[in-house]
Amino acid sequence: MQLSKPRVVIVGAGFGGLSAAKALKNTDVDVVVIDKNNHHLFQPLLYQVATAALSPGDIAQPIRTELRGYKNVQVILDEVISIDKENSTLELTNGFLDFDYLILAPGNRHSYFGNDEWEKYAPGLKDLNDAIIMREKILKSFEKAERNYKNKEEYKRNTSFVIVGGGPTGVELAGAIAEIARKTILKDFPLIKAKDITVKLVDGADRLLTQYDKSLSEYTKTTLEKMGVEVLLETMVKSVEKDLVITDNGKFESSNIIWAAGNTASPLLETLVTKLDRAGRALVNPDMSIVGYDNIFVIGDASYLIDANGKTVPGIAPAAMQQARYVSDLIVQRKKLNSRKPFKYLDKGSMATIGRAKAIAQVRKLKFKGFIAWVMWGVIHIMFLIDFRNRLKVMTEWLWYYITFKPGASLIFHNETKEKEKVN
Amino acid sequence: MQLSKPRVVIVGAGFGGLSAAKALKNTDVDVVVIDKNNHHLFQPLLYQVATAALSPGDIAQPIRTELRGYKNVQVILDEVISIDKENSTLELTNGFLDFDYLILAPGNRHSYFGNDEWEKYAPGLKDLNDAIIMREKILKSFEKAERNYKNKEEYKRNTSFVIVGGGPTGVELAGAIAEIARKTILKDFPLIKAKDITVKLVDGADRLLTQYDKSLSEYTKTTLEKMGVEVLLETMVKSVEKDLVITDNGKFESSNIIWAAGNTASPLLETLVTKLDRAGRALVNPDMSIVGYDNIFVIGDASYLIDANGKTVPGIAPAAMQQARYVSDLIVQRKKLNSRKPFKYLDKGSMATIGRAKAIAQVRKLKFKGFIAWVMWGVIHIMFLIDFRNRLKVMTEWLWYYITFKPGASLIFHNETKEKEKVN
Repeated sequence: MQLSKPRVVIVGAGFGGLSAAKALKNTDVDVVVIDKNNHHLFQPLLYQVATAALSPGDIAQPIRTELRGYKNVQVILDEVISIDKENSTLELTNGFLDFDYLILAPGNRHSYFGNDEWEKYAPGLKDLNDAIIMREKILKSFEKAERNYKNKEEYKRNTSFVIVGGGPTGVELAGAIAEIARKTILKDFPLIKAKDITVKLVDGADRLLTQYDKSLSEYTKTTLEKMGVEVLLETMVKSVEKDLVITDNGKFESSNIIWAAGNTASPLLETLVTKLDRAGRALVNPDMSIVGYDNIFVIGDASYLIDANGKTVPGIAPAAMQQARYVSDLIVQRKKLNSRKPFKYLDKGSMATIGRAKAIAQVRKLKFKGFIAWVMWGVIHIMFLIDFRNRLKVMTEWLWYYITFKPGASLIFHNETKEKEKVN
Repeated sequence: MQLSKPRVVIVGAGFGGLSAAKALKNTDVDVVVIDKNNHHLFQPLLYQVATAALSPGDIAQPIRTELRGYKNVQVILDEVISIDKENSTLELTNGFLDFDYLILAPGNRHSYFGNDEWEKYAPGLKDLNDAIIMREKILKSFEKAERNYKNKEEYKRNTSFVIVGGGPTGVELAGAIAEIARKTILKDFPLIKAKDITVKLVDGADRLLTQYDKSLSEYTKTTLEKMGVEVLLETMVKSVEKDLVITDNGKFESSNIIWAAGNTASPLLETLVTKLDRAGRALVNPDMSIVGYDNIFVIGDASYLIDANGKTVPGIAPAAMQQARYVSDLIVQRKKLNSRKPFKYLDKGSMATIGRAKAIAQVRKLKFKGFIAWVMWGVIHIMFLIDFRNRLKVMTEWLWYYITFKPGASLIFHNETKEKEKVN
């Protein structure tokens, strides 16, 4: 009798999950990848879909296509409802699935710090659907402002943007919106004046991009301000209502409130019944496993770890990919808990873009800014786009935009119209 | 006192509406273009979005971008509810709009011959939303078949396709589905066998593509059959239920029933209170105006006319564009009704694609088929794509697909999961 191979179930096909599946290719385990979406998403460029610079298809790739030809890997389109640690079983929406090893890479969502009712007034940006909805909201605002340019209040509200959160996503969105609003989209709306468009970036901290060096935070702020973004630091959001943000620094009316302020790990982790931090991330052992279960691992931004270097591992793609490869090795080598060397994150640097020819990058002590950082950013992001076809498309789009300033993908799929007014 | 210029309102920014706006550029009239979508759609390639070969953004272009810099043209994103001929006023969802001249180019939708309840079981294909929904439905079927490959019934239903309607759309969809199902997408679904996939094309007539020469209809049928499509002619659909088509030639189970059988012009035309044909098209005068109103024109596939050559003008893009230019000329020259020369359609030919390297074309008496027709088809469709950027993207996609057979845009944006089953 032949024993069957151990089954490794990977939950989530983001950077972590997909890297784990690839690391386990052609090894002596059976792999099942489960994701509720059929595509892997290149999240670092999601803000470009939300701001109509790229199309959804440019930054997403079907998981099956990505793992095509991996004989020991099976892909399932489904959502995991809960995890039964004792019996090594997952409950899915459409059934149950046993595992020998479990790699959880479910990612995170935006968090409203207990004020979930704000979400409908201030949507966040995590998946393609979020990006399409945000893009349509922005485009419809311009349509409304153009249509109602004589109605001061309506015009003002629809040409105002408020972005809550001064991390990389908030900065990238603020920069991109300031740019498209003033340079590209505006050419299509002759009645809207560039000077009327306001973009506010609100954060509670005393600087933007707190995970970077102070000099880069300062550069980012100055650069955004030059681009026309009003940066409001040490400003706490008290409440969000329809078209209104109330802060301890004033009330801001806007039909485009965007939330980029906080993250919380997937609620699936609650069913693990293991220790979580305030952001819902699993507190993992130095080998990424959870306490008491050496066959269950949590990787990527759903886990929290101070690594062997004594530093907090950041919730970014390169860290998730390193963890994926580390955990896959442990599994392939059937390492016992006590013989596992703790995970160590190799910091290859991080970067954020502010606008055209403007970015920042930091590789440990090294700092870069402006055009050189922007070129680095572009090259690295193109390189990491998984598929050659997507690389080609994104490069084409960027080049096209760089030369013509024409918006790339300003499509509204859904339409609904409401108020009655006289058109003049 | 200066008299204001006459206002020409164009309803719909399809091929007809957009051509009219362009023909009226920089003339002594004010133009308002109204569309409920913010984009012009290159409808002849819509089936390629539905079958995941192209992305929505590849074949759509914002109307504003298209008409950018046209100083006498204004664009409004809105839907026209009704037309008041007497008072020369349109009621929009968001207000009212007066006109001096009205060019109606609202297009058509699929028709279920009075059985509107079939639509939810057998969706049709007219706009980007339809295409995205169809694409997701097809991809989800493959996911289900792969997942339930041991459940014979479920597997069979999800690998069966039934297309109702043997006109160009039905033929193009049948060919494209047979091709993607067997060649591209299947590579991502290792458990589904190519020979299990069935594609049925059902039509009540005794041949496909009745508007073409009989020899081309025959070629189309043979070609589709070689590609694995079962062509069922003289087969009338009696009823459509969930996952079931009942015909006078048998019942067919399928989770992918697609409707390409009939068209009906926009219901807006009913508010015109003028004579319509059975397909809801306005019966227009030889100058495209409606009876009694020499300032209201209906063009494109929303109108019905036997032209000065004694032939029915077909409901295709080139005809709509010719009518648009004809009507614009009448308006610019302020031609009185009795001095208008009747519209004459110049037939430059028509074509349909069946699959890779297979198409048909007919230019009056000239007939083409196979590879040569396919190259003609490709060149002409690329040429007519309005924007250079889109041309570049579509060419890249086609080339990529031609070389790699990799699916282009197999993204599911929305996910919902239902039944519970055991995964093995």
